[in-house]
Amino acid sequence: MKLFTYFRSSAAYRVRIALALKGIEHEKIYVHLRKAEHRAPEYVALNPQRLVPTLIDGPNVLTQSMAIIEYLEETRPEPALLPADPAARALVRSVADTIACDIHPLNNLRVLTYLKDDLRIGEERRNAWYRHWVEEGFGAVEHLLAKQPGRGPFCFGDQPSLADVALIPQIYNARRFDVDLSPYPTILRVEEACADLPAFAESAPEAQEDAG
Amino acid sequence: MKLFTYFRSSAAYRVRIALALKGIEHEKIYVHLRKAEHRAPEYVALNPQRLVPTLIDGPNVLTQSMAIIEYLEETRPEPALLPADPAARALVRSVADTIACDIHPLNNLRVLTYLKDDLRIGEERRNAWYRHWVEEGFGAVEHLLAKQPGRGPFCFGDQPSLADVALIPQIYNARRFDVDLSPYPTILRVEEACADLPAFAESAPEAQEDAG
Repeated sequence: MKLFTYFRSSAAYRVRIALALKGIEHEKIYVHLRKAEHRAPEYVALNPQRLVPTLIDGPNVLTQSMAIIEYLEETRPEPALLPADPAARALVRSVADTIACDIHPLNNLRVLTYLKDDLRIGEERRNAWYRHWVEEGFGAVEHLLAKQPGRGPFCFGDQPSLADVALIPQIYNARRFDVDLSPYPTILRVEEACADLPAFAESAPEAQEDAG
Repeated sequence: MKLFTYFRSSAAYRVRIALALKGIEHEKIYVHLRKAEHRAPEYVALNPQRLVPTLIDGPNVLTQSMAIIEYLEETRPEPALLPADPAARALVRSVADTIACDIHPLNNLRVLTYLKDDLRIGEERRNAWYRHWVEEGFGAVEHLLAKQPGRGPFCFGDQPSLADVALIPQIYNARRFDVDLSPYPTILRVEEACADLPAFAESAPEAQEDAG
């Protein structure tokens, strides 16, 4: 298995965590976004969206982080990142999608670049934009997590799930942009629980060979 | 089952199509976004993100359109919206996520409102923003669909899938914003195939009771 990754891509970071939690051996291939390596023809042939990550598993070329993680869950089911009950699965996915659909896409590099270069939005207002979407999403996530009855250290229970896999990279991004996280005590407790697991630590941007 | 919907929400539109394709009886409850009904406390208690759709199935309150559709697929598997093979499922999901994660969230009402009110971006540049993200995503989707060997009338094969469920509402939105669709002949062929199915026609914004 080969993962095309960039240390600071939070979509790639999600897949790194999922691969590590499941203990799946793989080779990492680094695609430097700031050097526009994602626009090289050989990469675009694999990923026509010119985004990271891309995962290659035998003959299969997979794109889109959430689709990749669902694939890993279906082909390497242990340890499970989704519970067995459909309603519980939907709840975990809804937290993950709140991040993957409603926070992250508004704040990734291509969008910030468009705000800067095409709309001439200055740094201060770009940062306010960034924080706004994190706060909108984290408010909802905090509410959903805090109201779980008898909740464990992770988003849902005693084991990390797809929700934690999506949440941790988003917390990392939020810190980079100085989002005040004090209104989200449950999210902060989840962050602490994940920090204790090697799968999360070794997947972090600063632990990547291409970090810098 | 109860669906909280707004005629023009393309996330709600996706769920309407999925419910119709699977023939699931349900009651529709209309949440008027322009009248800020999604901010009413009773609705926020169901959906802390203050977004539509929300689906209620017995004791289960479900949010996030893609998580809802996965739930429907798991609890009412026929007709299937995802193929059986994991790699094929990942491909269908990746097209759906290209739309649900990388086009739609950049162009929904709350984002356009932020561009207008907070960033003071005029209509012409807001429309250019809108078209830009549709074109970025549709270029990749067109490429992925066109290269399928022996492709049928729908995104993948002879039956509609999650990819069609996500694509049709996005085409509707693209037309509203005058996106030139001529560079996407495969997408246009899929649109024609779906238009022939009652499940898509009856789920369209203009067919909703709250349209206007």
